[in-house]
Amino acid sequence: MIVDTLAIVGTGLIGGSFSLALKKAGAVREVLGVGRNPARLTVARELGLIDRAVDWSEAGQADCILLALPVGETEAVLKQLAPHLKAGAIVTDAGSTKVNVVAAARAALGARFADFVPGHPIAGSERSGPGAARVDLYQGKKVVLTPQAGTRAEAFATVRALWEAAGAQVETLEPELHDRVFAAVSHLPHLAAFALVDELAQRADGDTFFRFAASGFRDFTRIAGSSPEMWRDITLANREALLIELDAYIAALQVLRGVVSAEDAEALLAIFSRAREARNNWAHTKP
Amino acid sequence: MIVDTLAIVGTGLIGGSFSLALKKAGAVREVLGVGRNPARLTVARELGLIDRAVDWSEAGQADCILLALPVGETEAVLKQLAPHLKAGAIVTDAGSTKVNVVAAARAALGARFADFVPGHPIAGSERSGPGAARVDLYQGKKVVLTPQAGTRAEAFATVRALWEAAGAQVETLEPELHDRVFAAVSHLPHLAAFALVDELAQRADGDTFFRFAASGFRDFTRIAGSSPEMWRDITLANREALLIELDAYIAALQVLRGVVSAEDAEALLAIFSRAREARNNWAHTKP
Repeated sequence: MIVDTLAIVGTGLIGGSFSLALKKAGAVREVLGVGRNPARLTVARELGLIDRAVDWSEAGQADCILLALPVGETEAVLKQLAPHLKAGAIVTDAGSTKVNVVAAARAALGARFADFVPGHPIAGSERSGPGAARVDLYQGKKVVLTPQAGTRAEAFATVRALWEAAGAQVETLEPELHDRVFAAVSHLPHLAAFALVDELAQRADGDTFFRFAASGFRDFTRIAGSSPEMWRDITLANREALLIELDAYIAALQVLRGVVSAEDAEALLAIFSRAREARNNWAHTKP
Repeated sequence: MIVDTLAIVGTGLIGGSFSLALKKAGAVREVLGVGRNPARLTVARELGLIDRAVDWSEAGQADCILLALPVGETEAVLKQLAPHLKAGAIVTDAGSTKVNVVAAARAALGARFADFVPGHPIAGSERSGPGAARVDLYQGKKVVLTPQAGTRAEAFATVRALWEAAGAQVETLEPELHDRVFAAVSHLPHLAAFALVDELAQRADGDTFFRFAASGFRDFTRIAGSSPEMWRDITLANREALLIELDAYIAALQVLRGVVSAEDAEALLAIFSRAREARNNWAHTKP
């Protein structure tokens, strides 16, 4: 047992899968659920993701509280929770951006910021909600923690141990580097997929195009099936890093456009070959 | 039995899978292989993709000859084959672009252009070569044929019957519309994936980025593992349609960049929501 009670704010894919994995590992005795949507909490209880639905004051008495919410809600939720936090309670999150979450936690938690461990599990799905939760979602996946100078060492160690019990490998990064890296390898691809699908969908003859789209299109656009609300929040939260990535990507596409326009066969082969090599090297390092 | 002998020029994923499926369906008695690479033909024979390796003069005596090659080689191969074609022999291809293939066939085949049925199976893989061939590659997949005014009806009917025997659904399109549609739903996504991976790979600190790339990145960039030579040829062959698509995509990304820069939450949600709806509607129509 790593903690006696765990409270989860946001009992969807991310929070629900964390709970299932920790219960299976025997890392927690009781899981509490809290949130503004009673129907969702009922579903989460029926699915065994939480043992009980509680209010904010009871959630604050848990040993560890995980926020698994759109990042835009972090500050408001932490302000709601802060007055109820028992001494020693650890707070952590699962948000996809970290600079803004760290700032929100500093603003909302005051002296209790020392008990906040910012985190980001690199696992997910275009599916969402309690029904999407899976006991093995974090198995072999990375979780990035971004502790700050003032973060209490025991709080960090506990959160690390919980993620490891859930099957994940814990890494640490500075929040700024975290946001820059994920702007490039996650947020930009999402925006690129959304933009491509929307551009086709807006065409008067869009149906003809979708009719012949096949497996390459399916994989390329899978992430365009992701939650619009979640990605609006991530985009706004990581706006500065994402603008840099968007500019770099648009510039790369413009270079490629010039090469296509000039019918430069050699340059095309060079770009495609470098990309394939990098992509295959990367794929071979993955489990 | 639909044809007695089938000759395949290019015994890789596409040609080899066609052969395997037709043999299984009993649609052909003997499959001949022809090409400039004897080692590859030996592998194809060992894998059972072809029964015999033959030269161009013998290939021309087959009832049907399939070209399954990079589209840039179409004209040269047809010129090599043309003097050997027996009366009534049908020629077809599996190239990813059709305007240039039709032009190449007109130039190379002269009067025998009536026996040429341009085709494009919408199936593939980032894998290639004889070892990638699969008996079920075309099962439930679309094949687009682009017959011309002068195409002999019996030649078209035979090629259609062969693809149906291989498990595919045959559709017809004009070559120009074919190329416009596939520029948008296949060629552009490939270029977009190649460009994204290459841009990351060129960075001095690229390793840090690849280190944290996960499942969204994997699916988005899967097609960047495709054959550089094949995609160089497709890009050049469909250059004009592709430039139009590249411009539309860059414009869509610039609009999105403006929305991100302006922190326009409503517009972001609108773009993401339209894209998700279109993507999910499309995915639900697929087998």
